[in-house]
Amino acid sequence: MTAPTPAEGAAHTDEVPGRIMAREIAEQPAALRRLLNEGAGAIRSVADRIAARKPRFVLLTARGTSDNVALYAKYLLEIKLGLPCGLTSMSTTTAYGAQQDLRDVLVITISQSGGSPDLVASTRAAREAGAITLAVTNNPGSPLAEVSEYHLDVMAGPEYALPATKTYTASLLALYLLVEGLRGGDGEAAAELPRRAEELLAREDEVRALAARYRFAERMVFTSRGYGYPTVKEAALKLMETTYVPALSYSGADLLHGPLAMVGNVSPVIAVVPDGRGGAALQPVLERLRERGADLVVFGPEADVARASAGFVLPIEGIAEELQTILEIIPLQLLAHEVTIARGQDPDTPRGLAKVTETH
Amino acid sequence: MTAPTPAEGAAHTDEVPGRIMAREIAEQPAALRRLLNEGAGAIRSVADRIAARKPRFVLLTARGTSDNVALYAKYLLEIKLGLPCGLTSMSTTTAYGAQQDLRDVLVITISQSGGSPDLVASTRAAREAGAITLAVTNNPGSPLAEVSEYHLDVMAGPEYALPATKTYTASLLALYLLVEGLRGGDGEAAAELPRRAEELLAREDEVRALAARYRFAERMVFTSRGYGYPTVKEAALKLMETTYVPALSYSGADLLHGPLAMVGNVSPVIAVVPDGRGGAALQPVLERLRERGADLVVFGPEADVARASAGFVLPIEGIAEELQTILEIIPLQLLAHEVTIARGQDPDTPRGLAKVTETH
Repeated sequence: MTAPTPAEGAAHTDEVPGRIMAREIAEQPAALRRLLNEGAGAIRSVADRIAARKPRFVLLTARGTSDNVALYAKYLLEIKLGLPCGLTSMSTTTAYGAQQDLRDVLVITISQSGGSPDLVASTRAAREAGAITLAVTNNPGSPLAEVSEYHLDVMAGPEYALPATKTYTASLLALYLLVEGLRGGDGEAAAELPRRAEELLAREDEVRALAARYRFAERMVFTSRGYGYPTVKEAALKLMETTYVPALSYSGADLLHGPLAMVGNVSPVIAVVPDGRGGAALQPVLERLRERGADLVVFGPEADVARASAGFVLPIEGIAEELQTILEIIPLQLLAHEVTIARGQDPDTPRGLAKVTETH
Repeated sequence: MTAPTPAEGAAHTDEVPGRIMAREIAEQPAALRRLLNEGAGAIRSVADRIAARKPRFVLLTARGTSDNVALYAKYLLEIKLGLPCGLTSMSTTTAYGAQQDLRDVLVITISQSGGSPDLVASTRAAREAGAITLAVTNNPGSPLAEVSEYHLDVMAGPEYALPATKTYTASLLALYLLVEGLRGGDGEAAAELPRRAEELLAREDEVRALAARYRFAERMVFTSRGYGYPTVKEAALKLMETTYVPALSYSGADLLHGPLAMVGNVSPVIAVVPDGRGGAALQPVLERLRERGADLVVFGPEADVARASAGFVLPIEGIAEELQTILEIIPLQLLAHEVTIARGQDPDTPRGLAKVTETH
């Protein structure tokens, strides 16, 4: 079997490249609104039942885009609840048959399709080892939802484009509401998200102008800290799976421990600067990047954009830092879409990818 | 402050580029032997004291090369001891002030220098939150060793090259011996490592021939699974910090969830194939890569090398899979060194890096 070339892949779908991905990006305000209005009650009820069992530790299992959702949940659980968390290495169970003692452990498995056999197998093994198991999927009838004790439906509606977009933000919101429920909060702060998401989508032209900058980029580096770190991991993944440009993402601190050597005026850097403690902790990294003469594009507050080579001002004043994660990815999804089209490729059909990845 | 160009950096050290890194790579058999002969008893004693406290969960904290040591320890602890593990996101403590309940939790902090302020701060916070704290460093007098309840000295001797090599393999061995101690094993299987490491170093010419292949590479992709995954993360980091070529590393399963789109005949792939379950789990990934016509170079068993574009046969028959990690990085360290020299740069002095990275 030979992989289709990008041109062949495009012929299989629509005439307008990226039409499906663009539509699903645009559906995000509606998806967030639906989850807030129709799903929050069910999530709260699951949170109450889990809270009653007083988990001591949390393990998060996911791959690809869902792994970035897991990282967001890890920050929330550690910071808001003080629960120690880990991201699982699935192969310890699926390849090596590790027998773990998972009493008092909440195992959260995140997958938009809920169909990957290794996720189902590792969740089943966790339940047998005594864990409280929770699946977060976009498919309540999936094998993963079935095998888990609890399930959160992210209610994003069917997703057809290969690069996941609306299931990413809907899953972030589902995890935010879960943690709010676990801590006894009301989650009211999230009510504003759909409207803010609409405002971001209306600024597509600004993103298109930025995209021209990366028409010929041969590599890209993304960096952030704290609640912005899942965003840059997801942005790099999105850009890489649509444009095939190698995109590396680092927490600001890790960037200084080695990969900084790679950054110069030939490696464009995109920094996501949260308005809050993560953004403050990123300042020394931004300073080092400016010293090195890096091409630095900032997605963040106006003051940080003003000191960068270019940027996109995020309208995040008044939004809690942990909710900014759900918004700031939107212009970066648009960026991946626009850069791909500028390079003459089709974001809907990346070569070599299947929507449900059958890893074992 | 302007960062030195590679040429200026080279002038500050020796006439022969990469002389310091080459010497430290060559010191590895002696460093491993020293730790086995003079350090194993102390490690066993620490292991006994920690085992008596019956930790339920392990958190590992590290950055850069040490983060790859932490990943190795995570596999060992999960597979050999069935202990759930997590790699910490340090910013949850240092930037967000998360208050975690760490009773029953073993917190292992790994750092060759033991000097990075954020590691010291997060270890101090963990100890105050009730954790059993263990530092693994190459410097028993360091602030990190002081602030931790227990300490393992990896005894690698002073390391002068900016890219860490001998402290990496010595730290891997220290963690292996710790886990052997925790599970009541004798660690005898490790006795053969120094001799095998010598054999690998004697094959420098083979590595030099492979290095020519990457003289003009603009990106590289590394993949493995299980116990080989820390190796490819470390190999990619080493290559990136010495050559500045963007090098991405993925577990085989993650590669199929998105980044595979990026791999084609323009992205050379290096796969590390452990002889064991990790290597078996990697086979479907190798097949997909061959189908896509990737330039695939294998470090692994003879049969896998024979089906690749080129490779390096690892002499790992009879070596337990979890010990192969300590050996298979050696030819990849040599590769980073040789590719850097082939590209006219100096591996001893990557631009923009400091030996002790002061992240906060």
